[in-house]
Amino acid sequence: MSPKITTELLKRLRQVMKNPKYVQEPVQAYIVPSGDAHQSEYIAPCDCRRAFISGFSGSAGTAIVTEQHAAMWTDGRYFLQAAHQMDNNWTLMKMGLKDTPSQEDWLVSVLPEGSKVGVDPFIIPTDQWKRMSKALRSAGHDLVPVKENLIDAIWTDCPQRPCKPLITLDLSYTGVSWRDKIVALRSKMAERKVMWFVVTALDEVAWLFNLRGSDVEYNPVFFAYAVIGMNTIRLFIDGDRMMDPVVREHLQLDSTLEPEFKIQVMPYGSILSELQAIGAGLSPKEKVWLSDKASYALTEAIPKAYRYLTLYTPICIAKAVKNASETEGMRRAHIKDAVALCELFNWLEKEVPKGTVTEIIAANKAEEFRSQQKEFVELSFATISSTGPNGAIIHYKPVPETNRTLSVNEIYLLDSGAQYKDGTTDVTRTMHFGTPSAYEKECFTYVLKGHIAVSAAIFPNGTKGHLLDSFARSALWDCGLDYLHGTGHGVGSFLNVHEGPCGITYKTFADEPLEAGMIVSDEPGYYEDGSFGIRIENVVLVIPAETKYNFKNRGSLTFEPLTLVPIQTKMIDVNLLTEKEWNWVNEYHQKCREVIGAELERQGRHEALRWLLRETEPLVRVQ
Amino acid sequence: MSPKITTELLKRLRQVMKNPKYVQEPVQAYIVPSGDAHQSEYIAPCDCRRAFISGFSGSAGTAIVTEQHAAMWTDGRYFLQAAHQMDNNWTLMKMGLKDTPSQEDWLVSVLPEGSKVGVDPFIIPTDQWKRMSKALRSAGHDLVPVKENLIDAIWTDCPQRPCKPLITLDLSYTGVSWRDKIVALRSKMAERKVMWFVVTALDEVAWLFNLRGSDVEYNPVFFAYAVIGMNTIRLFIDGDRMMDPVVREHLQLDSTLEPEFKIQVMPYGSILSELQAIGAGLSPKEKVWLSDKASYALTEAIPKAYRYLTLYTPICIAKAVKNASETEGMRRAHIKDAVALCELFNWLEKEVPKGTVTEIIAANKAEEFRSQQKEFVELSFATISSTGPNGAIIHYKPVPETNRTLSVNEIYLLDSGAQYKDGTTDVTRTMHFGTPSAYEKECFTYVLKGHIAVSAAIFPNGTKGHLLDSFARSALWDCGLDYLHGTGHGVGSFLNVHEGPCGITYKTFADEPLEAGMIVSDEPGYYEDGSFGIRIENVVLVIPAETKYNFKNRGSLTFEPLTLVPIQTKMIDVNLLTEKEWNWVNEYHQKCREVIGAELERQGRHEALRWLLRETEPLVRVQ
Repeated sequence: MSPKITTELLKRLRQVMKNPKYVQEPVQAYIVPSGDAHQSEYIAPCDCRRAFISGFSGSAGTAIVTEQHAAMWTDGRYFLQAAHQMDNNWTLMKMGLKDTPSQEDWLVSVLPEGSKVGVDPFIIPTDQWKRMSKALRSAGHDLVPVKENLIDAIWTDCPQRPCKPLITLDLSYTGVSWRDKIVALRSKMAERKVMWFVVTALDEVAWLFNLRGSDVEYNPVFFAYAVIGMNTIRLFIDGDRMMDPVVREHLQLDSTLEPEFKIQVMPYGSILSELQAIGAGLSPKEKVWLSDKASYALTEAIPKAYRYLTLYTPICIAKAVKNASETEGMRRAHIKDAVALCELFNWLEKEVPKGTVTEIIAANKAEEFRSQQKEFVELSFATISSTGPNGAIIHYKPVPETNRTLSVNEIYLLDSGAQYKDGTTDVTRTMHFGTPSAYEKECFTYVLKGHIAVSAAIFPNGTKGHLLDSFARSALWDCGLDYLHGTGHGVGSFLNVHEGPCGITYKTFADEPLEAGMIVSDEPGYYEDGSFGIRIENVVLVIPAETKYNFKNRGSLTFEPLTLVPIQTKMIDVNLLTEKEWNWVNEYHQKCREVIGAELERQGRHEALRWLLRETEPLVRVQ
Repeated sequence: MSPKITTELLKRLRQVMKNPKYVQEPVQAYIVPSGDAHQSEYIAPCDCRRAFISGFSGSAGTAIVTEQHAAMWTDGRYFLQAAHQMDNNWTLMKMGLKDTPSQEDWLVSVLPEGSKVGVDPFIIPTDQWKRMSKALRSAGHDLVPVKENLIDAIWTDCPQRPCKPLITLDLSYTGVSWRDKIVALRSKMAERKVMWFVVTALDEVAWLFNLRGSDVEYNPVFFAYAVIGMNTIRLFIDGDRMMDPVVREHLQLDSTLEPEFKIQVMPYGSILSELQAIGAGLSPKEKVWLSDKASYALTEAIPKAYRYLTLYTPICIAKAVKNASETEGMRRAHIKDAVALCELFNWLEKEVPKGTVTEIIAANKAEEFRSQQKEFVELSFATISSTGPNGAIIHYKPVPETNRTLSVNEIYLLDSGAQYKDGTTDVTRTMHFGTPSAYEKECFTYVLKGHIAVSAAIFPNGTKGHLLDSFARSALWDCGLDYLHGTGHGVGSFLNVHEGPCGITYKTFADEPLEAGMIVSDEPGYYEDGSFGIRIENVVLVIPAETKYNFKNRGSLTFEPLTLVPIQTKMIDVNLLTEKEWNWVNEYHQKCREVIGAELERQGRHEALRWLLRETEPLVRVQ
């Protein structure tokens, strides 16, 4: 990797920062955040503005350019990468280190008195705007919205915003029609006494209308906004995709409908002016509901007194609780995914000893097997295919410079998943194709004990996921070990592989309580820098639990694994397992045999079936 | 209990709410919070203003009186008590129920437009003021500070503010001189670039100066404030207690000292004017550090730009980490406390079958045995002595109307503790003096498993206590049971039995990480309304843990029980214990035998010693 030369780019950016064509008055600093206008985790190439101006392409980072300086804030995952990708014009601000100033403090230290700091109000979330604006104001500066994006102004070969065809999902996939979702949303709006709801997150638009797209890699979403009134529905979307007769039929665009279900299709770019018109016409008590992660531009369109901002939207919360059709779809997707992985691991077992399989080849082979399955759409994230020391890099993605050959001497970690039309998968297995050391087995077994502790946990209705995080760590903690990431995240249903509002993490996180129908990952790990990484990840469904008693009639919950891929028994030190854990493993493998075995049989994949049967032999206790 | 008749009182309060002698302009509502000017949990009789105006004497509740209404907000612990104690002038607002309005919403619903809502700015914490003020302002009303307390204005027989003699603690108790504490505080102030620190919590003043008092029942504190500058120390305290030569010597009031350690003693009531003088004289960059729980009156004395507010003060954090002298003192106090409880339980075992021991008699007997121990000062909280169904009332305190006789047919729960000059204790034991049912034993054993899970937990340095809360519940959750309180609280060293900034709870709580030297309680429970209550509580010390590995060199922590009182083995269903738990109980009892046995022997308490030896026989596994 050689750094991107940014001298000329920065010169041009500093010019437009003073150019009245772009800014009402000159700005002394310009902030370039990572995100797009929808606060997406994964973004389209046209939204990679921070990477364009700096060369740094990691998933998290904020660039700030002043007349004299250019600085990049990013976290520990990316210190090395950012240092490699950026030239000497840039100062790397290592977040999390004690002496690294916050963006606000740094700005205050370098700016002349009474400076203006510009930012694209469409890119910055409202909560961040508020924090930054307050800090700057208290130091005598001003955060100002710059309507025209100054990176776009100098990005001459900026790629087009994607505008790919849509996929419609019928009731057999979604369980609920978009009409009924609108009805439910309006009832939530009535409860909170709001008249309008603005849908800004791409997965929320997709979920609400039972549509999917492919504008962003890995996430089956499309660029759109929606504004739902008590009697109106406006969908802001570009391109000729609304000409597709299947989409028109799905949205009933050409039918005679009650007016409150008639969808008005408007250009994507007209959201701001439409919201401003709504804002201008509000009468007292007519509130507008927005996420406090919505862009500041949209929030600002509504007069302060009329805004109703919440951390989670009613769509985010409804989307997280999967109905029976979605759950069945997720089950089917996970069965297909398991078939693909049985094929892959069987293949690896034969090929690895030959020394010809690299991390990239293995990742591609995984994709090949998945793509043979029905209704496969794409991967759900960049495959983490890592062996030996690369396994200890938690967010590793193999590239030619780091690509390592799998061998019988090293642990192999594969964290991968796919989008199928009926569901989204995300699974991690850690394998050894030779003979693992006692220490490797010991660590693997602690991780497995943590995985089981969460998966088999029984907890009262209303429990928040963050209260389960320590269960996953307890066995590691007992030996002085730990892992520095959360234990689980919400998973979408043929939607984003990471979604709110629930999760399992030790971090301060305002998660909503777990409830039956929610789907999360369970993925403890252990990483030893320079030698290996271990992670065991299943996607699990929250289900009601039968208990002996029922305190205050609250009812209890537990998890059912949707992922049904063998956990390599060769890596388990059986003597470290309790009887309960030992039973869990055997019952899990029995279920893999039954469910995935039947599907392998049906698909005529006999070699993979034999591999599955071998890998799911019951654990034997030697005592 | 007959309700307090408040008609006349409310009439007089409503008069002063309009009387220009007391208010600059009439207030349409007046808020009477629970607390004192120091946000103390336990308050002196002169500060029981809410109880005076309403009759409701519970520990938590806020009264609001308007021209037409009088309403009381309190939580589920007190619904019954409040309903009994208040007359028909009052509306009970049951907090936590779905339809109960918040104080702000209720005020907005009943007040005429543009109302003034009064509150004593010395009583309301700054963070609460901000929240309430913002909510009222957005509805067109104003929260206004009423300098003269309107309850005091009508409380003709209000008791005097206590002003009892002080106790000085030498280095053998405190480990650190007050001078060194001031030096450490000033270094924290320098780190944060603040010039002044205002000490408002009573236990923080007491800790800082190595003084104790008895102005408030159960808490060895005294009414005082302190303001620490980089070169000055001001102590605001009333009465002739500063005439005591022992106190003068301790504080070196008559010595020739470097000016920065010279304590200026000032009247308690002059804190506000002194702070205002400091506030008026500040130059840019001279910040003043206050807790955001400090009263609004004090915070308001400092111009906004100069305030530095934090949730926890540096004293709160330093006080939580006990040094070797404090830890040793706590150990000694717990040994004496265990001796008293061995005497008590031995006595109960003999007396209960006679049917003559009531909850109140048992509580008094516990106090009698404690008071025989050296350096006993007082109880550390009101003894919870409860049998049968009373045990299910978590904050029960026996009164003649509820007083129940202990019997061989019911479970007895005793949660009690004392202040000794060398430490503070808090211990709960649940006993059966006859034959417990299988179900009672089952529930007891789940609670014990939870207690052990926390007590024996090993966790990395830097872990926050709230991450351990679920360990205490896991065994109960597995059977569909739970308890509706937190698992542990910080414990002071001859100071308040509840102190921040650490704890073990599932509630949203911004706790500081646990570190070696912190002392918390470990007290899971199970309560069955109408039949029994179970709780097992030890006070435990955070200590470094030896582990097989040491991830990232972070080091690990665990707990050491300071409480050494037998856990009734008769109540344990041994077959529900794992081997690890079984060993824990036997080792714990072995330590009780050794440490408490030796002390009982030394004190010549042979009968209690025999009781201890009987109660600490090793558990036998029948399998």
